[in-house]
Amino acid sequence: MKLAFIGAGNMGSPMARNLLRAGHQVTVYNRTRAHAEPLREDGAALADSPSDAARGVDAIVTMLAEDQAVEQAVESFVETLARGAIHIGMSTIGVACSKRLAERHAARGQAYVAAPVFGRPVAAAAAKLWIVAAGPPEAIERCQPVFDALGRGTSVVGADPWLANAVKLSGNFLIAAALESMGEAFALVRKSGVDAGQFLEIINTALFNSPLYAGYGGAVAKEQFEPAGFKLRLGFKDLRLVQEAAESAAVPMPLAGVLRDRFLAAMARGEGDLDWAAIARIAAVQAGL
Amino acid sequence: MKLAFIGAGNMGSPMARNLLRAGHQVTVYNRTRAHAEPLREDGAALADSPSDAARGVDAIVTMLAEDQAVEQAVESFVETLARGAIHIGMSTIGVACSKRLAERHAARGQAYVAAPVFGRPVAAAAAKLWIVAAGPPEAIERCQPVFDALGRGTSVVGADPWLANAVKLSGNFLIAAALESMGEAFALVRKSGVDAGQFLEIINTALFNSPLYAGYGGAVAKEQFEPAGFKLRLGFKDLRLVQEAAESAAVPMPLAGVLRDRFLAAMARGEGDLDWAAIARIAAVQAGL
Amino acid sequence: MKLAFIGAGNMGSPMARNLLRAGHQVTVYNRTRAHAEPLREDGAALADSPSDAARGVDAIVTMLAEDQAVEQAVESFVETLARGAIHIGMSTIGVACSKRLAERHAARGQAYVAAPVFGRPVAAAAAKLWIVAAGPPEAIERCQPVFDALGRGTSVVGADPWLANAVKLSGNFLIAAALESMGEAFALVRKSGVDAGQFLEIINTALFNSPLYAGYGGAVAKEQFEPAGFKLRLGFKDLRLVQEAAESAAVPMPLAGVLRDRFLAAMARGEGDLDWAAIARIAAVQAGL
Amino acid sequence: MKLAFIGAGNMGSPMARNLLRAGHQVTVYNRTRAHAEPLREDGAALADSPSDAARGVDAIVTMLAEDQAVEQAVESFVETLARGAIHIGMSTIGVACSKRLAERHAARGQAYVAAPVFGRPVAAAAAKLWIVAAGPPEAIERCQPVFDALGRGTSVVGADPWLANAVKLSGNFLIAAALESMGEAFALVRKSGVDAGQFLEIINTALFNSPLYAGYGGAVAKEQFEPAGFKLRLGFKDLRLVQEAAESAAVPMPLAGVLRDRFLAAMARGEGDLDWAAIARIAAVQAGL
Repeated sequence: MKLAFIGAGNMGSPMARNLLRAGHQVTVYNRTRAHAEPLREDGAALADSPSDAARGVDAIVTMLAEDQAVEQAVESFVETLARGAIHIGMSTIGVACSKRLAERHAARGQAYVAAPVFGRPVAAAAAKLWIVAAGPPEAIERCQPVFDALGRGTSVVGADPWLANAVKLSGNFLIAAALESMGEAFALVRKSGVDAGQFLEIINTALFNSPLYAGYGGAVAKEQFEPAGFKLRLGFKDLRLVQEAAESAAVPMPLAGVLRDRFLAAMARGEGDLDWAAIARIAAVQAGL
Repeated sequence: MKLAFIGAGNMGSPMARNLLRAGHQVTVYNRTRAHAEPLREDGAALADSPSDAARGVDAIVTMLAEDQAVEQAVESFVETLARGAIHIGMSTIGVACSKRLAERHAARGQAYVAAPVFGRPVAAAAAKLWIVAAGPPEAIERCQPVFDALGRGTSVVGADPWLANAVKLSGNFLIAAALESMGEAFALVRKSGVDAGQFLEIINTALFNSPLYAGYGGAVAKEQFEPAGFKLRLGFKDLRLVQEAAESAAVPMPLAGVLRDRFLAAMARGEGDLDWAAIARIAAVQAGL
Repeated sequence: MKLAFIGAGNMGSPMARNLLRAGHQVTVYNRTRAHAEPLREDGAALADSPSDAARGVDAIVTMLAEDQAVEQAVESFVETLARGAIHIGMSTIGVACSKRLAERHAARGQAYVAAPVFGRPVAAAAAKLWIVAAGPPEAIERCQPVFDALGRGTSVVGADPWLANAVKLSGNFLIAAALESMGEAFALVRKSGVDAGQFLEIINTALFNSPLYAGYGGAVAKEQFEPAGFKLRLGFKDLRLVQEAAESAAVPMPLAGVLRDRFLAAMARGEGDLDWAAIARIAAVQAGL
Repeated sequence: MKLAFIGAGNMGSPMARNLLRAGHQVTVYNRTRAHAEPLREDGAALADSPSDAARGVDAIVTMLAEDQAVEQAVESFVETLARGAIHIGMSTIGVACSKRLAERHAARGQAYVAAPVFGRPVAAAAAKLWIVAAGPPEAIERCQPVFDALGRGTSVVGADPWLANAVKLSGNFLIAAALESMGEAFALVRKSGVDAGQFLEIINTALFNSPLYAGYGGAVAKEQFEPAGFKLRLGFKDLRLVQEAAESAAVPMPLAGVLRDRFLAAMARGEGDLDWAAIARIAAVQAGL
């Protein structure tokens, strides 16, 4: 397919590379052009604006950090993107933002598919992302070659694009909740005199048997939050989007409220650039550890 | 070994049976004698009181529902249990209770090993429990044949018996936290219009890859909380013991506070005898689902 | 003074009337013109747009329900308001919005004073509002005749206008917290068998001795939430603005998190148009009362 | 009346003195006898044990710090207290403890009236306590001369003694909630750049108009928590009793959960002997102030 790709960051770069390797023709735009340069070796063309990148493509992929960045990009390319072309939004954005994008594209006769991903940069590089897609079935079908090049599987959760965003945000909420629960439990056993690493081994062997608990739990047990796989301030952004979605659906989420305060407490300590697993340390701090 | 076993309930009966099968000589006491009767076919002797059961044994195992039940049993047998014999406390009891028991036995020249287990009745029957033990190293060594007959592994977490109880309680806290986080996330995606079962499949495939999340998540997604594998009112008891431990260690645990209210809300609805996974439904109820 | 007044609602109408009675020359604009008509009898001129109202005045007062309404009004009148004139923002708006307005007016050489008020419509009619003002001292001084006509006192909290908004929002947070605390305490004593009205009398006589506790407490004790003095959905708006301010200042506020869920639970029950004291009933509902 | 008085602490001493001044004959017992000595000048007899003090009296008053202390005293005097005599329990104790005392006295043909008080030592000295009484109406009537000598008013809340304890605990919960709400609001305005003292003045003038808010708010604004009028660790004891009552009545109280963590965080900082208003500082600490 003829594709545009907006956003060559930690996630976007390996994803664009995988699209090139799968034989797609890809024009890349990144605000800081230098970050996109290496992709030229893989065969990418570079564009000077989202608008330029969008000209003549079958589909345009966005992979950016925030609602606002995505909306600005869309404002740039919505006029040059052809009628009938597809915007595949793979960023983790809010439900409300996704609704606005759906309207914006519909008004222009374009299709909008939300397709956020689960997986960190290393999974992106290995084409092992898990893609959660939602949008018009016919459009999703046309996106399949893109999804195949990027991930190990795709779940289609509905015809309304924002459903995919709700699922992605809820997933991130579950991870943050697991982090907080480990933070509190580790604080309790450590202050009682049990080694955190041993506790982690026990709960993972006896209870969760989950690579995610093992991985994040290891970071929490060792209090090792650098380098950041996913920055705390971005985790907070997602938590806010969870609360925004919960608000518009009128769903009380007390645990989300606890998480919010953990993120704020970490940011008050100047830890916004650590890995988001660092929210688990707040429990230890408050216990005087 | 020559053993006594106090408590032939859902967990205790299969455990006692496995001890018999492993060749140990076991005298069983259960308050309701009829529940212990079937163990006679496996070679158990039945006693009329904990005190009777304790006479002449190398070790006595307790597997009861609550702190109070364990303390009453100990009061009954502490005078007849030989000096040098071991009390292996496998119930999920509080840290404070465990400290009292340690003192009680020390004063009588007896050893006390706390050895609570992770695993449900089906794991008990299959001798697949995971045992968390703490106590004097020499005593723990002598308990090894008992642990071998009951579980698939043992973690020794320290020389102070109550450390094992702190670990077990913290593990249960982590499960309850996972339940609550699923309850809130499911409420959000369901109210947004996504199928709960599909969401569960996604998060388990893409994120947790954990049998525990799969199992409990299935119950939450289907709102199927009967029959109870572990009753909600017992889960609340454990949560209270977590808070008791957190209090004596001065560890703020906001998530435990949220869980407390979920248990209370469920009990105000008369759901104390459902499986404890039913706390996850409170989020749905409060969202008007 | 020659004044414009934007927003002739429950609060704005009596305020505009008091300005007229104090001898000011007032041009009023209200989106629904009919609501402003009665003010003509008091000597008001009516305008067809905020822009029209602003022409030639010394100061323009805004008293509207939401950030967005205020920003739209400002967009309308910022070009016609004279350099050196003052925008007196008396609505309860967010800190971030107030910062944007300050910049907007500064760029046009206009002064911006934030002056939100404490008090309900009955206090507005009696010119008994309490005004919290912030902004350039010289501008505040010029506003004094306006404040004198509207309230029983003014507190000046700083030279940055948004400080007044932070104070107003924090005040509303304190009221909501008092409501929630009464909700929980009343649920406990009622379920224990004590009469709610008697409990209220005791705590107010023995503890708070506060008209606010007496007033809201009476509503909570009788569960009488209509007619709404201040709608629950507007209270939620304010709570959100509190959380927004807390977020930008990195201040964890766990009680605000609890309140958020109470508002959401009430709205999930369709109670957004009740008086905001109705959040206190959620505790009773969850206790099965 | 012929009275015994158990507990000559900060509260008990001035109360016993007021009973003597009102013409009652009072025998005082205090564990540390020296603290009771000054009361001899006021005409008190001193006893060597609660049991001695109780002999021949019409009523015995207990004013002690904790459930356990009250229960130990009762065990001491229940055999010597005459049938038909009254135990007036004025300590702040738990609902469950109060139920046990009611049974204990009923079995001995004695009356038990719970009559906890609102008011600090200075109010006790001025005979300005507010008394919340519950128990058999006939017994309460006989206590009236005691209440008249101690307080400025009495509320009778029912025939079951523990109702008075539920009311007293709920009142303390409301104060603690007010403290926490001030802690969070002050953290927000201070970090925004508003003076805490000015904020307090505003909210009390414009909103609460309550001596309690003024008094505690002053302590919070100045972060002055010594000397302790009521120690933080005793406040935590009361909060625990609130949660115990909430648990047995199945009343979820999320705000109580937040308070619990504040107390624990303060105690983890070694602040158990400060005034309980110090829980309000935790919000500031977590905000990095």
